[in-house]
Amino acid sequence: MEHEIADLPRGPLDIYRKKASFNWKEMLHFIEGEETLVFKQRLFRTLENDALFARKPGEDIPIEKMRELNFLRVKQLIRYNFLTQEEMMANPWRSVVLNDCLGMYDWALSAKFALHKGMFGGTVANTGSARHSKYVKNTEDLMVFGCFALTELSHGSNTRALRTTATHDPLTQEFVINSPDFEAAKFWVGNLGKTATHAVVYAQLYTSDHVCHGLHSFIVPVRDPKTLLALPGVQVGDMGKKLGQNGLDNGFALFHNVRIPQENLLNKTGDVTPDGHYVTPFKDPNKRFGASLGSLSGGRVSITRMGLVNLKLALIVAIRFSATRRQFGPKEAEEIPVLEYQLQQWRLIPYLAAAYALEHFTKSIFMNFVEFQIGQIMKDKSDRQEEMGREIHAIGCSSKPLGSWTAQRGIQECREACGGHGYLAMNRLGDLRNDNDPNCTYEGDNNVLLQQTSNYLLSLLDAKHRDGVRIESPFHTVDFLDDFHKILESKFTANTSEQCMDSAVPLTAYKWLVCFLLDESQKRLEQQRASGNNEFEARNNSQVYYCRSLAMAYIEYNCLQRFHELTTDQDTPARLRPVLCKLCSLYGLWCLSSHMATLYQGNYMSGGKPAELVQMTIVTLCSQLKDDAVALVDVFAPPDFILNSPIGCANGQLYKNLWSAVLQGSQVLERPSWWKEFCSDKPVVGSLRPKL
Amino acid sequence: MEHEIADLPRGPLDIYRKKASFNWKEMLHFIEGEETLVFKQRLFRTLENDALFARKPGEDIPIEKMRELNFLRVKQLIRYNFLTQEEMMANPWRSVVLNDCLGMYDWALSAKFALHKGMFGGTVANTGSARHSKYVKNTEDLMVFGCFALTELSHGSNTRALRTTATHDPLTQEFVINSPDFEAAKFWVGNLGKTATHAVVYAQLYTSDHVCHGLHSFIVPVRDPKTLLALPGVQVGDMGKKLGQNGLDNGFALFHNVRIPQENLLNKTGDVTPDGHYVTPFKDPNKRFGASLGSLSGGRVSITRMGLVNLKLALIVAIRFSATRRQFGPKEAEEIPVLEYQLQQWRLIPYLAAAYALEHFTKSIFMNFVEFQIGQIMKDKSDRQEEMGREIHAIGCSSKPLGSWTAQRGIQECREACGGHGYLAMNRLGDLRNDNDPNCTYEGDNNVLLQQTSNYLLSLLDAKHRDGVRIESPFHTVDFLDDFHKILESKFTANTSEQCMDSAVPLTAYKWLVCFLLDESQKRLEQQRASGNNEFEARNNSQVYYCRSLAMAYIEYNCLQRFHELTTDQDTPARLRPVLCKLCSLYGLWCLSSHMATLYQGNYMSGGKPAELVQMTIVTLCSQLKDDAVALVDVFAPPDFILNSPIGCANGQLYKNLWSAVLQGSQVLERPSWWKEFCSDKPVVGSLRPKL
Repeated sequence: MEHEIADLPRGPLDIYRKKASFNWKEMLHFIEGEETLVFKQRLFRTLENDALFARKPGEDIPIEKMRELNFLRVKQLIRYNFLTQEEMMANPWRSVVLNDCLGMYDWALSAKFALHKGMFGGTVANTGSARHSKYVKNTEDLMVFGCFALTELSHGSNTRALRTTATHDPLTQEFVINSPDFEAAKFWVGNLGKTATHAVVYAQLYTSDHVCHGLHSFIVPVRDPKTLLALPGVQVGDMGKKLGQNGLDNGFALFHNVRIPQENLLNKTGDVTPDGHYVTPFKDPNKRFGASLGSLSGGRVSITRMGLVNLKLALIVAIRFSATRRQFGPKEAEEIPVLEYQLQQWRLIPYLAAAYALEHFTKSIFMNFVEFQIGQIMKDKSDRQEEMGREIHAIGCSSKPLGSWTAQRGIQECREACGGHGYLAMNRLGDLRNDNDPNCTYEGDNNVLLQQTSNYLLSLLDAKHRDGVRIESPFHTVDFLDDFHKILESKFTANTSEQCMDSAVPLTAYKWLVCFLLDESQKRLEQQRASGNNEFEARNNSQVYYCRSLAMAYIEYNCLQRFHELTTDQDTPARLRPVLCKLCSLYGLWCLSSHMATLYQGNYMSGGKPAELVQMTIVTLCSQLKDDAVALVDVFAPPDFILNSPIGCANGQLYKNLWSAVLQGSQVLERPSWWKEFCSDKPVVGSLRPKL
Repeated sequence: MEHEIADLPRGPLDIYRKKASFNWKEMLHFIEGEETLVFKQRLFRTLENDALFARKPGEDIPIEKMRELNFLRVKQLIRYNFLTQEEMMANPWRSVVLNDCLGMYDWALSAKFALHKGMFGGTVANTGSARHSKYVKNTEDLMVFGCFALTELSHGSNTRALRTTATHDPLTQEFVINSPDFEAAKFWVGNLGKTATHAVVYAQLYTSDHVCHGLHSFIVPVRDPKTLLALPGVQVGDMGKKLGQNGLDNGFALFHNVRIPQENLLNKTGDVTPDGHYVTPFKDPNKRFGASLGSLSGGRVSITRMGLVNLKLALIVAIRFSATRRQFGPKEAEEIPVLEYQLQQWRLIPYLAAAYALEHFTKSIFMNFVEFQIGQIMKDKSDRQEEMGREIHAIGCSSKPLGSWTAQRGIQECREACGGHGYLAMNRLGDLRNDNDPNCTYEGDNNVLLQQTSNYLLSLLDAKHRDGVRIESPFHTVDFLDDFHKILESKFTANTSEQCMDSAVPLTAYKWLVCFLLDESQKRLEQQRASGNNEFEARNNSQVYYCRSLAMAYIEYNCLQRFHELTTDQDTPARLRPVLCKLCSLYGLWCLSSHMATLYQGNYMSGGKPAELVQMTIVTLCSQLKDDAVALVDVFAPPDFILNSPIGCANGQLYKNLWSAVLQGSQVLERPSWWKEFCSDKPVVGSLRPKL
């Protein structure tokens, strides 16, 4: 039975909906598929029917209350158990869909849930052993509440320099967890502020002979599950208000020689024998460290998707607003929707194209990650598996910057495109921006991560130069680089706007761009080394305009390339292909336009024509897509209850929705409680004027 | 007597302070001058010593409380009367300094104060007549509280289409103020939410013969000053939470045939005689409308400065953080400040250069505005005065986008550059971003305003083509355009990085760029007209890549040009010139680099060399300026009490300050009030699992 997609309510948006070149329900089916559609609908309906999830747009809620609500909702999610372990294993994509849906409702909810279940429960399950299974069980039914404590006050990116210690005591068969000083306090730990009873704590493992065996993780009880009071020796607390996601209680912990049973060491990568000797299945400590890289990629791939979800929500709001907000017009008496303005199209529609590109991209790289994970679970020790790990790491380290930055800029553009109404909290663009912002920072600062990707690309080139090996990789994202000499000879050849409409044009340009930047970065590094700089300095001085640009160009190329394949895939419904092709070309040209200087610099382009062609094609594509824009966001749009933005409602009754939401606010028409402050105690002008 | 500037506290920032190439106190004296320094110090000390202004970084305060505090502080400002009317007239710059200082403390405070005193009191004083003087008096001593009601729910940018009416009733000598429906409700009015007793309301003036005489302003009582309760016929209320500036109560009002005395019409631009006839000193209604353009420029020039102040605060935080945050290093055991990284320098130091450029620019255009205003007050009816009005309008309409966008992007970069700690509310980067954001929108959406500037430039070119008149203007910002044919023939000729270090290089390039974009925009418009589009369509279709880029290039050029003059001015102290020259070149090249595609497109640049030169010079300048960066922000920095950001304190004790601020938060170490929700009522997994 085909899942029935409900019609959208009629209203002012019908004008655009009727003009759409494609059937939005067909697109929705194509993108989501039957199973996901049913799952999402069930989930959204459940939340909407549960009073615990009720809310008012733009409410002013104290942080204490936000955290309580968020905790109660997590508890309710456990009761709903939307996705069993078995269902998740059968179709891993569902876990992404679940995260999408919870995030669309509130990122603090999905974060609190995921930190407890995934970052605590998952880490214990995956890096511990049979002796830790009770913790996994207790995570399921909330007998414990978990968190993941890696970062310290003075160390984030440089994890190797973390200073918390775990010293083995063979006499008592315990580890002693200690923070040398407050700068080594665990910091920024989600769930630790108010709720966590147990933490996975990363610490330098010392055996009793004072030898350090590097970073390991331990299950450390921090609060009494019966009282939520801190345990002896643990100073644990709340970091306070953040820019966003305030339903999540981030916290800190200082450990004063806290003793935990020896078996609390998560022993997959190393263990200590009862007599106090360190044993590890890894011979090379770097390899041990590297083994954890793969699983970190899962987080980054997932954050890329979180950025996309935020971008989609912001676009739904801004495009529905732009299609119903009228201002000015060719005649004084006749105002036109602001979406008809070239400038408004150019501000929003490229981001819409980016959202479609990222929709396919995030799905596709998630599948790559799943393939890698299966190999890990199967204990595949092949070279291919190891190469896959390196490639997925390079992808994740650049896809997160791509997704989170595109979202951050896109949301800001959407906010501004909605003018003053975009600045009203109830319309949610502020929350989207604030909740998306940490995606640029956690699981690795974007700029720092990009170095991992460029290092990967440079190492491939090095290996080719040194050993003559072909450049190729399991997911084929770098295979084209093997031809780099030939590609570098190519030129921009499109002569007409019609030719530029083909996404092959930006795709070909990107191939050249990545090769050029790879070549230039390599030369820059060589030049730095030749001038006597050590490797650390050489790398540092090759980031700006070289390695950083290389990593961004690589991932943009990759995203474009996968989208391009989708538009030419025979399985893509023919009726949807025209609009997808336009979106793909627009995305490609728009991204490319930020690299125009490099294209000229490397002589891929010359003269006035190419830049003008690219620009004019962008403007033309925006204009061709403006009548599809409303239908394109309808495809992404969750129910109004989830979107929670009066100016973004599906019925398009912009002013009615906004006006009622304003009037339904708290104490809107009442005078302030402190009204007497105005009416009495009038100030005497200058009575307190300070003297020099 | 020279004003004594106190030394900064010693600490970890000393390393950089000692490396600075200039004396920060000398720079401070040069930029601020004796009088301003004394004034600022007096003001800051007064606030710091007044418990009403005390606060904790990152506090979670309910909106109702924020508004009360903000109101009480406004009342206290009236008692302090930091700036008398006479002092302001004697030195208009002081009003800017006052606004800077209050804004550094909290923009909601400066906004509430300025809306009451300036937008209400000032508008009544400037556009009313003797019969309105009691309102001006009552504004001073807080007998009334004022606001400025222009925007409506469904109309912002297109002010001519506002729909509130004021119909004259000759029988009672009254005006009847009416909102035809809720879409015409006055909306977004600052102070109207909870506190205003009187509003300056813009409405279409109708005489009793049903003739509309266009938009006029009226003093309309909205709340009883004795009770703060709404007056009959006025539905007035609070719009609720905004993305920022929540101390300010923005509100709405619907008028149901509210009668006000006829004399409440602010009658400078038009009046109604007792027998109901409309009279105006302006013959052309367009001129009447245009007369108000000039005074609007004051607001925009002031917003440009507000953007700058926010950018400065964010940079103080991010640069002091970067100078004390250490992560990684050439050797494992030795971490270096992140400010030593090329990438971190490139992210922050160009914004620091922008702040110095905008510091001089905002001062300089304010003086232009004052010159224009004096002419207005003197009732100068000369052509030059009228031209000055047009020019200052073109400047204000583009300087606001330049200032607000540079700040918005810069603050975001600062937030990200501080990593997780930048995401903590107490460090203030979120508030700065949120409070700066509306600068992009109010007093005209940035993108809409830019059209005013490009229209001005295009009209000058038209006049030259049509009538052969020279292109020149009172403030000389456009004079170079008269040579545009010759300038268009110029090429980028710098060959070495040393040459590019001279800000004359980007300045010359900008001249070419503005001429090129002007020429191209003109051609594009002609082409649009020739293809049968009406004027409205032709303009719309010429914005992206043409008129919009033109307006931005014009104002960037203008800002750079004024800074360049400062660096070559003999009155600029010789010891400060080297660092100012570097900042100027960096600002110029960095801005220019965003137009590189156009420079190649128009053949001003060709081959790989120029782009590489520009890029390498930017990187080199950043590296040369990194040792000056701390001293450069010390010049801008208010006392820690005002900056209110633990990671940005002058003593540079990054972790100590942050750690104590965290521990001083509210209920940091306490368990949550709802702890029993965790400890009892454990959920049964899947007990509520929804059925299909």
